[in-house]
Amino acid sequence: MLAEIITIGDELLIGQVVDTNSAWIATCLQEIGVEVVQITSVSDSEDHIVEALNLARKRASMVLITGGLGPTRDDITKKTLAKYFNSDFYTDQIALEFITGIFKKRNMPILDINLAQADLPKKCTPLYNSLGTAPGMWFEDKGQIFISMPGVPYEMKHMMETDIIPKIKARFELPTIIHKTFLTAGIGESFLSLKIQSIEDALPPHIKLAYLPKFSTVRLRFSARGLFREILQQELDVIETQLYELIEEYILANEDISIEEAVGRLLLERNKTVATAESCTGGYLAHLFTAVAGSSAYFIGSVIAYANDIKINELGVRHGTLATYGAVSEQTVLEMARGLLTKYETDFAIATSGIAGPGGGTTEKPVGTVWIAVVSSQNSLVEKFQLHGQREQIIQRAAINALNLLRKMLLSNE
Amino acid sequence: MLAEIITIGDELLIGQVVDTNSAWIATCLQEIGVEVVQITSVSDSEDHIVEALNLARKRASMVLITGGLGPTRDDITKKTLAKYFNSDFYTDQIALEFITGIFKKRNMPILDINLAQADLPKKCTPLYNSLGTAPGMWFEDKGQIFISMPGVPYEMKHMMETDIIPKIKARFELPTIIHKTFLTAGIGESFLSLKIQSIEDALPPHIKLAYLPKFSTVRLRFSARGLFREILQQELDVIETQLYELIEEYILANEDISIEEAVGRLLLERNKTVATAESCTGGYLAHLFTAVAGSSAYFIGSVIAYANDIKINELGVRHGTLATYGAVSEQTVLEMARGLLTKYETDFAIATSGIAGPGGGTTEKPVGTVWIAVVSSQNSLVEKFQLHGQREQIIQRAAINALNLLRKMLLSNE
Repeated sequence: MLAEIITIGDELLIGQVVDTNSAWIATCLQEIGVEVVQITSVSDSEDHIVEALNLARKRASMVLITGGLGPTRDDITKKTLAKYFNSDFYTDQIALEFITGIFKKRNMPILDINLAQADLPKKCTPLYNSLGTAPGMWFEDKGQIFISMPGVPYEMKHMMETDIIPKIKARFELPTIIHKTFLTAGIGESFLSLKIQSIEDALPPHIKLAYLPKFSTVRLRFSARGLFREILQQELDVIETQLYELIEEYILANEDISIEEAVGRLLLERNKTVATAESCTGGYLAHLFTAVAGSSAYFIGSVIAYANDIKINELGVRHGTLATYGAVSEQTVLEMARGLLTKYETDFAIATSGIAGPGGGTTEKPVGTVWIAVVSSQNSLVEKFQLHGQREQIIQRAAINALNLLRKMLLSNE
Repeated sequence: MLAEIITIGDELLIGQVVDTNSAWIATCLQEIGVEVVQITSVSDSEDHIVEALNLARKRASMVLITGGLGPTRDDITKKTLAKYFNSDFYTDQIALEFITGIFKKRNMPILDINLAQADLPKKCTPLYNSLGTAPGMWFEDKGQIFISMPGVPYEMKHMMETDIIPKIKARFELPTIIHKTFLTAGIGESFLSLKIQSIEDALPPHIKLAYLPKFSTVRLRFSARGLFREILQQELDVIETQLYELIEEYILANEDISIEEAVGRLLLERNKTVATAESCTGGYLAHLFTAVAGSSAYFIGSVIAYANDIKINELGVRHGTLATYGAVSEQTVLEMARGLLTKYETDFAIATSGIAGPGGGTTEKPVGTVWIAVVSSQNSLVEKFQLHGQREQIIQRAAINALNLLRKMLLSNE
């Protein structure tokens, strides 16, 4: 079953709004075995919408449309669809009740243009909207389905989850698609592809592999499509075993989670705590830890030691160390990490110091030079990284590498 | 001048990646007077890419393509374009130097698949990529332009800014468009629109106003299109004067910069220093400060006090305060801020404490409750915010509001 998504709105084409709806809808459809073949964003223009509909129905048997259902004049999706399917309008009493109910709840006077939102094409099945004033519409035409939804993300999501997905499942016999994602770190995309070449070469046509790099991690996503979930699952299990044989040291998780979640789980499982002493990452590492809900169970806190005085006074880095080796050095990050471990009494402490740029680089220590240390009461791991990209990327990559270094330490302790 | 954007990648169609490139490119093109008529996302499939190219060139004279230029087998954009334009390959020596340079710099062995990234279609003008291994390509065919760029956002952006935009400007006679952006904070979009209604109502048809909300800031972008830059500039100057008369207190900058840059400049101008004591923002506020190059001149450091012990031991928050009022309270954030001000000896200290969720909310203090304090040796400002959104949004909004509170304090000191 193939689907297309059409998002309608001038705001998308001038870059004012990033289309997040499409990715969300695509994920939803994927999960029930509907494959999205194209996503198209067009302006609030009748000709352009009709052209997009005509092209989409050539490629797909289901077209999902968002946007252009508001009450104002620039919203023309409903009118355009009614004309496209050659349908008159009627006033839908249930939609009218939803709309008047919303205005009553918000204690706002209702305008004629709002009431008119209950006028729907006779040829559609209404998709009632409990969260907003624009009803959705489900059209069937020559065996094809056209679904029109509001562009407001939370209204659209609610309509998809409660109404549209169940309707699609009931209406079609769908194939089975299952995905298996592996999070890797510490190895680049091309090296990874070399290491797992034997697996990739042996993949049957119904299993696809995608490399999804992001900063210093790469996600490997295998997608298997077929008739029987159990058989597909068995095939992916075999691949998983092979993958662990080839690249176990680089695999952080066998599911689609972030590195900060993966490391957080390791800490939680082992009942360990961590704190960070950050110079070049400037709080970004602490932010990654604390972006995970429930991180207060293992993340204690940080000293962001941007100024050298803070490194000395708060972390106990020695004057002599800074004078002899500089702030960006193995000796300094080790003293930072050890100082914090004692001060915050955690099981692990991570320290970062580096040159995020754009200024501050030298021939010896160019922009992107980052030292990272992870220490526990028994062990220490320290590594120098030469990171690329602009300031923002260097900060992000340094933080990801710090998480990966902590992970190595956690696993080596076993 | 009309353009279309085609983004290529299976990851877009299964919803794994949100296409943020298109909105960014559309904004860029808008600024130089190029109108985007459609955005299309297609899979890594030759037939589909060719179909999209054929349709796009019917509607637009310029097609911008991102994605599918990686070294692995799933990336087929280059091969497809070469075939589409009926072109042989050659090895581009400059691209080769860039690629080998990148591997040398990263101190990594280079693979054949990486070297092959320097093989380019003879019919294209190469767009060299100083940030990654995939060169872009500029094709001209029957008077139309086709530009292929990497899908990695920062590589694409750098290529657009430094190479493609200047090339487009040189190649075409474009109308004159000038933009003037104002960064506002502390006021919502609808209230802002009410306050500046007189300006908006009086705008001539050739000047457009866009509201660009992002977290707790709203950018106002005026775009004037015409023939004579000087006249347009005069018109925008008049608008600027009127705008300052109406909403000066909300304007953080009369240019398109981030709030952290605007606040950083204020600190720099006044030769003041700042530090942060963060609970719910968990390092994100420190990250915003340190994301700005040169921030070490005014940002000293932070204590991320996620655990209550850290609030007590490192910031001097009293046991009694935590016991009586709780960690999320006016009293606690004030003690956190004052404790840090003394400890780090800065001119200003900011403290945050709140409930970022999804758990931890109560009827009295629901998820999104955030207390923020800014203190100096003479003054203190403390405010409670009720923020909406999910964990990530609450953290980000809290940090933005903290920056805005520091800005208020800085301006009130004048």
